[in-house]
Amino acid sequence: MKTPISMIRSLVLLAICTSAAQAQSKGVRGSFLDFVGDPWEMTAKGMDESESARFIKDGLMVIEDGRIVEFGEYEKVSANHPGIEVTVFKDRLIMPGMIDGHTHFPQVRVIGAYGKQLLQWLQEYIFPEEARYFDPEYAAAGAVKFIDNCLQSGTTTFQTFTTTRPATTIAIFEEADRRNMRIIAGVTGIDRNAPDYYRDTPESFYANSKAMIEKYHGRNRLLYAITPRFAFGSTPEQLEMCRRLKMEHPDCWVNTHLAETLNECRAVAAYFPDTEDYLGVYEKYDLVGPKFSGGHSIWMSESAFQRMHDSGACTVFCPCSNLWLGSGLFEIGNAMNPERPVLVAVGTDIGAGNTFSLFRVLNNAYKVGMLNNTRWNGDFVPSEKEPARAERNKMSPYRAFYLATLGGARALRLDGWLGNFEPGKEADFIVLDVKDGPGEIDWVVSRVTEGDPPKQGAGPTPESTDEVAFPTTIEECAECLLAVMAMSDNRTVEETWILGERAWPREDE
Amino acid sequence: MKTPISMIRSLVLLAICTSAAQAQSKGVRGSFLDFVGDPWEMTAKGMDESESARFIKDGLMVIEDGRIVEFGEYEKVSANHPGIEVTVFKDRLIMPGMIDGHTHFPQVRVIGAYGKQLLQWLQEYIFPEEARYFDPEYAAAGAVKFIDNCLQSGTTTFQTFTTTRPATTIAIFEEADRRNMRIIAGVTGIDRNAPDYYRDTPESFYANSKAMIEKYHGRNRLLYAITPRFAFGSTPEQLEMCRRLKMEHPDCWVNTHLAETLNECRAVAAYFPDTEDYLGVYEKYDLVGPKFSGGHSIWMSESAFQRMHDSGACTVFCPCSNLWLGSGLFEIGNAMNPERPVLVAVGTDIGAGNTFSLFRVLNNAYKVGMLNNTRWNGDFVPSEKEPARAERNKMSPYRAFYLATLGGARALRLDGWLGNFEPGKEADFIVLDVKDGPGEIDWVVSRVTEGDPPKQGAGPTPESTDEVAFPTTIEECAECLLAVMAMSDNRTVEETWILGERAWPREDE
Repeated sequence: MKTPISMIRSLVLLAICTSAAQAQSKGVRGSFLDFVGDPWEMTAKGMDESESARFIKDGLMVIEDGRIVEFGEYEKVSANHPGIEVTVFKDRLIMPGMIDGHTHFPQVRVIGAYGKQLLQWLQEYIFPEEARYFDPEYAAAGAVKFIDNCLQSGTTTFQTFTTTRPATTIAIFEEADRRNMRIIAGVTGIDRNAPDYYRDTPESFYANSKAMIEKYHGRNRLLYAITPRFAFGSTPEQLEMCRRLKMEHPDCWVNTHLAETLNECRAVAAYFPDTEDYLGVYEKYDLVGPKFSGGHSIWMSESAFQRMHDSGACTVFCPCSNLWLGSGLFEIGNAMNPERPVLVAVGTDIGAGNTFSLFRVLNNAYKVGMLNNTRWNGDFVPSEKEPARAERNKMSPYRAFYLATLGGARALRLDGWLGNFEPGKEADFIVLDVKDGPGEIDWVVSRVTEGDPPKQGAGPTPESTDEVAFPTTIEECAECLLAVMAMSDNRTVEETWILGERAWPREDE
Repeated sequence: MKTPISMIRSLVLLAICTSAAQAQSKGVRGSFLDFVGDPWEMTAKGMDESESARFIKDGLMVIEDGRIVEFGEYEKVSANHPGIEVTVFKDRLIMPGMIDGHTHFPQVRVIGAYGKQLLQWLQEYIFPEEARYFDPEYAAAGAVKFIDNCLQSGTTTFQTFTTTRPATTIAIFEEADRRNMRIIAGVTGIDRNAPDYYRDTPESFYANSKAMIEKYHGRNRLLYAITPRFAFGSTPEQLEMCRRLKMEHPDCWVNTHLAETLNECRAVAAYFPDTEDYLGVYEKYDLVGPKFSGGHSIWMSESAFQRMHDSGACTVFCPCSNLWLGSGLFEIGNAMNPERPVLVAVGTDIGAGNTFSLFRVLNNAYKVGMLNNTRWNGDFVPSEKEPARAERNKMSPYRAFYLATLGGARALRLDGWLGNFEPGKEADFIVLDVKDGPGEIDWVVSRVTEGDPPKQGAGPTPESTDEVAFPTTIEECAECLLAVMAMSDNRTVEETWILGERAWPREDE
């Protein structure tokens, strides 16, 4: 049963000081978990992956004007800030807000569309629905719904596709700005292989993109991505416009799809016979480098991964979508080859992905990893023949939550602003009740916090969630987070804060 | 946000008649959806799969002593039962209670255990936790938790493994009996490849099974399954005891695991060199036939499926578990070959499976189906070469909910008692609010009920769930159920009724 909001609020104790001098500072006290390193890198160096994370059981984060100014042990940090207003979270885990590296904000209403692979699915379900977002009113209402669902699920930053028309991009930027969110978005060009009513042209794409960059890029926390939908949907002329935009605005991001399905790869190869592969198309137009995201990247050669690594580009792993459309299995153990690691973020890829919750995305990522270690026709079992690669396929809670926070920030080149609790960064964070979610999760958590492996014979059977102990070590936290990604979703997210202010639950809820 | 219970209850209108003569009868009025045929069979015959289902927009189910005595259009049925007490569900979809064909009730607390494939996972996580259920008090408390979570998720019948000790079996039978549930369970034998403290012997297995059969089989709604855990864990002597039990109690069920992982198959082949394959072990001991369940059946030959078909045995598809442990991809399009269809139920397989919700199981089954149509190394794409088989892999909402209700009942040989709303059957049903679940589902449902494909240009954006129309045709219901399996879980289940009485939410909730 969901804890009523009124009860949650009662846990937030305010200790307001008498000093008026520090009125702009505020503190958040509780148990914090964030990442300071890459768990795959730790493993490759023979270190324990828990060294990638930082757990402070009784911590204090001091925030000024939405930025973290100091963070550490409560006892130490509080001494430097006598009497600041402190919000206290008891028996909650505070983590950085999560980052959805690849989503389509105008596709919410077609989540769960039936039984088609990518190219047919686009024609039958996606373009008709996205075209409704040409209407500013529909798009504005959709943006509210979309962001509400992100915040409810603990997602504080996302990189999203829009449509061919500026109205859609305007709607999501305006709403994100109203919520003080850091997001990446851009007019999404497609000038072939889409219906007449949906397509744009190289010229309109250039003009619309240019206008949106000038209006929004760098306004408060908003960031612009030059966004050709995918090489299958852009003529060489439109890609030439992308190159021009990137040259004129080199600080802009570039967001697109890459090697998602076999049929698409074959079609792209036919369209661009002079490029080495799908990635080669984007390379040809000088789009691949830092700030480039190639979503999916399932059907990649060794050479393509090597070039992604060399250029500092990133890919976005979208397991829910890859499974729902049957696109294939992205193999993270291959992408994370320590000889040439590729930057990876995770994404919901709504509406092919079927959830706003990055916990459920991580759940699906875990399953893909386990499956990648077993071939279903049994002729080859990678876990037996390439144990190091197979080990990298395993989505431990450290790896999973790294990808959803600091790893995603690094991949998307946002880590100067966010991704963990380093002083100077923006105070986007989520407050998790790891015992809340489906009915069984409190009982699973109780096993973790009473000690594992469980002792033989009788043990405590908690009558209620209140009796379940809170995790007190980094290992217990990791095991609880594994339970959250195994079982839960937005129900575990109790509060979401943006720039040091509570953004969810909304005050009017 | 979850609708408060008080509001739900206010929707239940009671119209109590003046006639005392029909005091034992009661009616349930609302929109009903159940199955009367097999959607795969419809497809094979060139019919529309919707013909497998029955939707009654304004229906009445009349219940006496927990059994359905009449079911059909309200106008027609109500005329035969003037003045009976009627519970009315407005804007809700009433479906048969769901059937979990394969679960492990003593494994709830180890859901989400990390990173091991089957055989290691059993040793490291499962046996220590299951051993706690040797204690009657621990087992009894666990049975309450387990059944509460089943009911909350809309599962009214399950077939479960227990442990080697009778205390565990006693606990689940007693609790299920207290709730008037029809379940299948049995003492779970393993006399090799388990720790000393966990193992049984052929003799103790026989004696314990015999005692439990005599005590519980046929008591009220309880049914007994002779349950060797799996061929890898039973010596020929223990399997000989299974044969003896089945001969002495031919009306008992037989429940076990079959061909779940490659390593296990190899080990079983070494233990039983004289049998054709894994299934052959169970055949050798005369266990395979109607009422036999071989859970998983991932690594099956054509011959094994043919023999399953010939014998009338069933398998249980457990996609969440198969993905979490990386066991492999069960291919339902192959099992459902119309030349030799195999009976299939679906199962959560808790605790390798990570959810109580069969909706989430169906979600994972859908993904497995799509993935089976795409091979990840790209050398062979079944959907291009075997279109009929690929089509059978697609988990339409008709197929999915058939498996969770009538299909599961048929596979487990329970369809004489339950599975749909045929008069004479037991009145186990669930009441779904298809608009309730994660935050976005109401909006997806609104797209379905306003007409699909959506019209181009502006359309309604509901401000609240109350404004979203309820599905009124079988096609709209199916699309809403697809949304439920794409996105939701127990949050969509508003009430669960057992034998004509509301069993969830519990009165004390």
